[in-house]
Amino acid sequence: MKILKKIIYTLVVLIGAISLGFIIWGSTPAHPMPEAISALKSSDAVTVQTGKWLVFEPAGSTPATLGYIFYPGGRVDYRAYAPLAEAMAEEGFLVVIPRMPLNLAVFGIDKAADVMAAYPEINHWVMGGHSLGGSMAANYVYEHPDQIDGLVFLASYPADSNNLSTYAGSVLSISGSLDGLATPVKIAHSIGLLPTNTEWVNIVGGNHAQFGWYGPQKGDNAAVISREEQQTAVIQDTLEFLKKVDQ
Amino acid sequence: MKILKKIIYTLVVLIGAISLGFIIWGSTPAHPMPEAISALKSSDAVTVQTGKWLVFEPAGSTPATLGYIFYPGGRVDYRAYAPLAEAMAEEGFLVVIPRMPLNLAVFGIDKAADVMAAYPEINHWVMGGHSLGGSMAANYVYEHPDQIDGLVFLASYPADSNNLSTYAGSVLSISGSLDGLATPVKIAHSIGLLPTNTEWVNIVGGNHAQFGWYGPQKGDNAAVISREEQQTAVIQDTLEFLKKVDQ
Repeated sequence: MKILKKIIYTLVVLIGAISLGFIIWGSTPAHPMPEAISALKSSDAVTVQTGKWLVFEPAGSTPATLGYIFYPGGRVDYRAYAPLAEAMAEEGFLVVIPRMPLNLAVFGIDKAADVMAAYPEINHWVMGGHSLGGSMAANYVYEHPDQIDGLVFLASYPADSNNLSTYAGSVLSISGSLDGLATPVKIAHSIGLLPTNTEWVNIVGGNHAQFGWYGPQKGDNAAVISREEQQTAVIQDTLEFLKKVDQ
Repeated sequence: MKILKKIIYTLVVLIGAISLGFIIWGSTPAHPMPEAISALKSSDAVTVQTGKWLVFEPAGSTPATLGYIFYPGGRVDYRAYAPLAEAMAEEGFLVVIPRMPLNLAVFGIDKAADVMAAYPEINHWVMGGHSLGGSMAANYVYEHPDQIDGLVFLASYPADSNNLSTYAGSVLSISGSLDGLATPVKIAHSIGLLPTNTEWVNIVGGNHAQFGWYGPQKGDNAAVISREEQQTAVIQDTLEFLKKVDQ
């Protein structure tokens, strides 16, 4: 009995330590760069709300008819995508970036449901995400294909168990040719998991971390183009896509 | 003296053997697939001449105002690019593919000059090429930038010694995300060698060999998309580019 007690005690301590380590790991995300923090300020064109969600709302008199829900990459502070969101809102779209538990979208897959419930006036919903965030957005779309009209992957792809090849909505996949994490091989593999009319954009010279504003990332390659250039390409392609879905 | 004679004799035999081997190597290119041979037949829309050059001329009453000179990849039979040429000619462009000595464009860099001399009525000249062919086309443009209005790279890039970043013409670079020879790293490196307004297209799931019709290639990766899909993308992007240059 003494030995059993010891084993149980050791297991409890081990599980506790691992959990604590995991929480600390998840609670220390990559920090947003100053450019991302600047994009959180409301302007004449965009009203920004911060909190459990970042909400970027066009400030003009014409209300948005399309909402874009964006899931952040794993262990990346959700504010790191504020410049992308601001650019979409400037063009008339509502953009919402939910904060994820432990900065891991895998623990907040269903956040989109709360967002959609809060904005019943929106006609079209598009989900998107970077890296792990894109995969989790794909998981939501896989479970609720009729709720979402479009899906945007930034350096991301669905899990093999979330085959979306029969999804009737629109899909855009944007990747970087020098991405060391969502590599060209992994992106190409996702061709079989997505509809045949998916739009594929590969940014030559772009990498994984420059899809956001949080600095470099372990396992990634150095980019040959600047973060500004990569972001400009992402914004342009995403905006074209959103406009088509909004028609 | 006997030893010197022996050394010279050995050297001559060695050089002879190496040269013979090289000639045999160059004379055994990758063969065109049946689809390429079919594209060599004249149709209602396109007149095809074969010989030292493959010439694809629009058969309609409107004469072409733009000519596209295309250099084949190294050790690839020049007919392997006939389907691409046919598609361009169908849209009103003159396309000429010169046969290269030993199927190596490095020995026929100046063929473009002969082609241009033969068609003085053409207003705009664009050069392009696949792999080694693209690099040699770039070399011609580097030496004669004022003669050529545009440059198209298929899975290719200029040599470091042919920096074209100040070239005033238009440039289009099309690559494949799974190319095992002109890899994403090599393509991204060429960003620094080409003008800032270069158009970059990366075909997700495409490889090196599917830019032509000559079967698989050593050192390449398997593609995830079909040859037809890759060719359709190349044709569409090249046509858009040629139309812009022809304006």
